[in-house]
Amino acid sequence: MSAIDYLKKAVEYDMNGRKLESLKLYQSGISALLEICKTETNPEKKLHFQRKIDEYMTRAEQIKATITEQRSRGEIIDKIHIIANGTGYGYERIFGKYLNDSVKEISLEEPYLREYYQLINLVRFCELVVLKCRNLKFLNVTTVAIPTGTNQHNDQKAAFQALTNDLKSRNITFSIDFSEQLHDRQIILSNGYIIKIGRGLHYFLPADKFCLGQYNFDFRKCKETNIDIFYCPENKTS
Amino acid sequence: MSAIDYLKKAVEYDMNGRKLESLKLYQSGISALLEICKTETNPEKKLHFQRKIDEYMTRAEQIKATITEQRSRGEIIDKIHIIANGTGYGYERIFGKYLNDSVKEISLEEPYLREYYQLINLVRFCELVVLKCRNLKFLNVTTVAIPTGTNQHNDQKAAFQALTNDLKSRNITFSIDFSEQLHDRQIILSNGYIIKIGRGLHYFLPADKFCLGQYNFDFRKCKETNIDIFYCPENKTS
Repeated sequence: MSAIDYLKKAVEYDMNGRKLESLKLYQSGISALLEICKTETNPEKKLHFQRKIDEYMTRAEQIKATITEQRSRGEIIDKIHIIANGTGYGYERIFGKYLNDSVKEISLEEPYLREYYQLINLVRFCELVVLKCRNLKFLNVTTVAIPTGTNQHNDQKAAFQALTNDLKSRNITFSIDFSEQLHDRQIILSNGYIIKIGRGLHYFLPADKFCLGQYNFDFRKCKETNIDIFYCPENKTS
Repeated sequence: MSAIDYLKKAVEYDMNGRKLESLKLYQSGISALLEICKTETNPEKKLHFQRKIDEYMTRAEQIKATITEQRSRGEIIDKIHIIANGTGYGYERIFGKYLNDSVKEISLEEPYLREYYQLINLVRFCELVVLKCRNLKFLNVTTVAIPTGTNQHNDQKAAFQALTNDLKSRNITFSIDFSEQLHDRQIILSNGYIIKIGRGLHYFLPADKFCLGQYNFDFRKCKETNIDIFYCPENKTS
């Protein structure tokens, strides 16, 4: 896509309340515009590009600040304590009721997506949100990067690529951000709900081969963890 | 368990309408009684045992005949045609609504339980019925035996053993019958419903690694197959 395509789409999504995806598009558009600006020799045109860049950067910063601020607000509406070895806590039972057609964008912050079982948990998470949120358009995952050249890196790359392609075929944009400072684990829904799980997606113990719980996680024994669900009507971005 | 224990339980379950399990218990009780009868030297006692064996055999034959007859009755109440590559046909969507607290016994006739993915389908089937039929007490699987000494035999044995132990811990008896003549694929529920799937449990195409459908079979592409659901109130055995 060209700089103009990115920015036109960014403005359109911004107007429609699809803040997360709009922010991504502003960032991509600004980068593309910076490249054009660098090579532009006509001083008048260069100045015009610089002004446009400033303008879009201001808007992108505003959106970012709004998102950050909103995430720190909200009131706890549910608390779940999972005891060690407890069962009956698959994703759907924990937060399925907040996933519905009002969710257009989801941001998942999960530091650990490196072991095979962790990538599998991400696939299962995607299956659930796609099934329940029929208007989902954008899913962003923030995680900690893995050094290149390792098997874990290759697995992670393969998983992200497979999910990108699969979700694209369902008209959902899947994007990844890498962050070294990530510690919080949370799922932010554009309908105003934030799900904070102490252990993120990975609170299940392994199941024995051919035993119940191998596929349906309601049968899986869990590790001890706490879940807080927040809601703030002002957090609604879609 | 002793012959008396088997037969006492058989009579009890017979009275309570748990026909499938009662039949199994009659058979085990009769075998045990035959062993005792063989070694009995007192002619009076021997005659008594023989009479009891005849009596229980008659009852077991009656139950067997009733079960066989009932399975051939019933009216078609639903027909589902799955087209090649169709999606949205996980087990729950296909027959989940017939699985409820009125089901105490299930008989699954599935000739092919030898490949790893077929055993996995059995595990997934068990997960679903245990979750939905909270009064389930007995699950019988009839399948074609695999020659011993093969990897498939070992896998099948491991799966059946794991399921037996797991289900036992949930107070459900899991039993296996091997049959060489098995061709029909059907799921017989003790609440009167019979689910006949042309391809049995194995009508799914494989999913790509890390793609949606790896875990939730509603996303899986299917092979073409037909499903007929029969219902006969007289088939109710529980």
